[in-house]
Amino acid sequence: MGKKYANKQVLLKSYVEGNPSEDDFELKMSYTSSHIPHGSNAVFLKNIYLACDPALRFRLSADDLSDNIDLLKSFNLGSVIEGFGVAKVIKSTIPDFEEGNYVWGVVGWEEYSMIENPKVLFTIKYTDVPLSYYVGILGMVGLTAYFGINNMSSVKAGEVVYKSTAAGGVGLLAGQFAKMMNCYVVGSTSTDEKVDLLKNKLGFDDAFNYKKEDLGEALKRVCPNGIDVYFENVGGAMLDEVILHMKSHGRIAVCGMISQYGLKEKYGIQNLFHLITKCIRMEGFSANTNYWKLYPQYLEWAIPLIRDNKIVYFQDIAKGLESAPAAFTGIFHGKNIGKAVVKIVADE
Amino acid sequence: MGKKYANKQVLLKSYVEGNPSEDDFELKMSYTSSHIPHGSNAVFLKNIYLACDPALRFRLSADDLSDNIDLLKSFNLGSVIEGFGVAKVIKSTIPDFEEGNYVWGVVGWEEYSMIENPKVLFTIKYTDVPLSYYVGILGMVGLTAYFGINNMSSVKAGEVVYKSTAAGGVGLLAGQFAKMMNCYVVGSTSTDEKVDLLKNKLGFDDAFNYKKEDLGEALKRVCPNGIDVYFENVGGAMLDEVILHMKSHGRIAVCGMISQYGLKEKYGIQNLFHLITKCIRMEGFSANTNYWKLYPQYLEWAIPLIRDNKIVYFQDIAKGLESAPAAFTGIFHGKNIGKAVVKIVADE
Repeated sequence: MGKKYANKQVLLKSYVEGNPSEDDFELKMSYTSSHIPHGSNAVFLKNIYLACDPALRFRLSADDLSDNIDLLKSFNLGSVIEGFGVAKVIKSTIPDFEEGNYVWGVVGWEEYSMIENPKVLFTIKYTDVPLSYYVGILGMVGLTAYFGINNMSSVKAGEVVYKSTAAGGVGLLAGQFAKMMNCYVVGSTSTDEKVDLLKNKLGFDDAFNYKKEDLGEALKRVCPNGIDVYFENVGGAMLDEVILHMKSHGRIAVCGMISQYGLKEKYGIQNLFHLITKCIRMEGFSANTNYWKLYPQYLEWAIPLIRDNKIVYFQDIAKGLESAPAAFTGIFHGKNIGKAVVKIVADE
Repeated sequence: MGKKYANKQVLLKSYVEGNPSEDDFELKMSYTSSHIPHGSNAVFLKNIYLACDPALRFRLSADDLSDNIDLLKSFNLGSVIEGFGVAKVIKSTIPDFEEGNYVWGVVGWEEYSMIENPKVLFTIKYTDVPLSYYVGILGMVGLTAYFGINNMSSVKAGEVVYKSTAAGGVGLLAGQFAKMMNCYVVGSTSTDEKVDLLKNKLGFDDAFNYKKEDLGEALKRVCPNGIDVYFENVGGAMLDEVILHMKSHGRIAVCGMISQYGLKEKYGIQNLFHLITKCIRMEGFSANTNYWKLYPQYLEWAIPLIRDNKIVYFQDIAKGLESAPAAFTGIFHGKNIGKAVVKIVADE
């Protein structure tokens, strides 16, 4: 039989317009049983880390824009927020997940989660690296950066790669992965401190603060001969301007559009015409790409690089489940340096 | 030595805003010598057919949007319009082009053209088909339809292909080429007469008049399960709506955006976000794609289909060089059925 656990949870209090604020969330104390009914496939997890992923923003809108992708569907009001996390298996009726093991995947923003028929859940194979890496560099974030650079962009050595949101979780990895392929890598970010980080710690060839400079002027300066590959996480006016700076046969890997998630009236892109004159390829990708199957390959590639300190990786770790709303909303104002993560237990 | 030829010409009188009108052009009587100076590579041509291609619209704007593609560069005011044509070689110092042979490629809107160092000019290999086909199905138009369906769209049998401007030169061919690949093909056009043509003569599975119906409703009706491949020649509101109807992993081959060429303030596309959720690939192509090298392959594929009447092809042939401005401006109002062509000599 199961045991009852006191379970602090973060719920969606109100649907979000514009950027999310802490008031859109609610903390609630609840009780959750670890009992798994006979015949059902489930794991009962003690959650340890939660990821603050920009894509979670979709799920906070009343309008469902998910195109039926589970990971992007709008939450019901009052339901527990769901997102990527690292957890320990307390109970399991699924052979793949053994009690006592660590897992990463989609969990609730709560202390304990009962997950029936988990779709995105992986047993953690290597525990000699920080467990929190599995909500970042060794999880969806790292896989996204890897997939964007390696599979979506047809990047070749010597090409000019531009990354917006370059100091974010995906950005700092995508930039380094492109450098490993001997590209010329430039990035944009929202503070001078992060510009310095990109240029002096993360190996970017150049970087600029998009809040301080005219975007067109800045791109002309850092990519005077144009951009071969743009790894897109911003959308709106940024995308419209970048198109003007793309080289012939350039590629735009569309991963996110953080500037547009909150807007009722979205920015209208006017420069798509140049897709024709420049033969530009623009391609979106998401969990819908079925890129999960690439995860084992990515993991085996990334693990030795991490062990050998060949990748610089930053995390911005907030402590306690109650800090999750502030940590998450902060990423929409460029507050985080590196991957924003919430640690919800003190003892792991 | 050369001979002087009386040479009627069509010049650009004023730069165009919005849709072009006949007043933007000027007819002029001139004299042109057939003399080719010693040492220069040139052909002197008697022009027979001229193509009214939508892409010519770019070159009529004061703003150069060409991204340095010769075929899209703005004309100088007062210069002779240049475009695709069929001609007979009167004189030549280039071994590839023999006197008396027919050629197709870029010529002037004039009775006689002297072309130095021709870049896009092909000797016509098969003359058992109408010569006018070489400004259409056997020229740039056919190659564009072929390239768009075969190379840009990764079309597979059974997929749903949607073609806007379906009764235009590229459209009616693209639709038939997709049918040959066993796709479900739907098209939109601007009159009921052309809808009938698409459905009953050209083998489209379905078609609609976009001027008579709400676009979203119409697309829902003709593609209830969504679109795999959209062959784009319209842009603007059409593109924005089509994105909402694309299936996951759909492809958009961007060939033209005729609704946007004339506008100072372009329509702002708001739905690009769905490129991410649906993993859509959107790719532009133009002469810049270097697709000319595919021409011999296309020609050998198309010629037997034409000879065996396996392709339905329509031309809308205007007579006389002086009719060229009206024929060209008509395509911006959907006046043509099939490829709009001007025949400038009576005797070929």
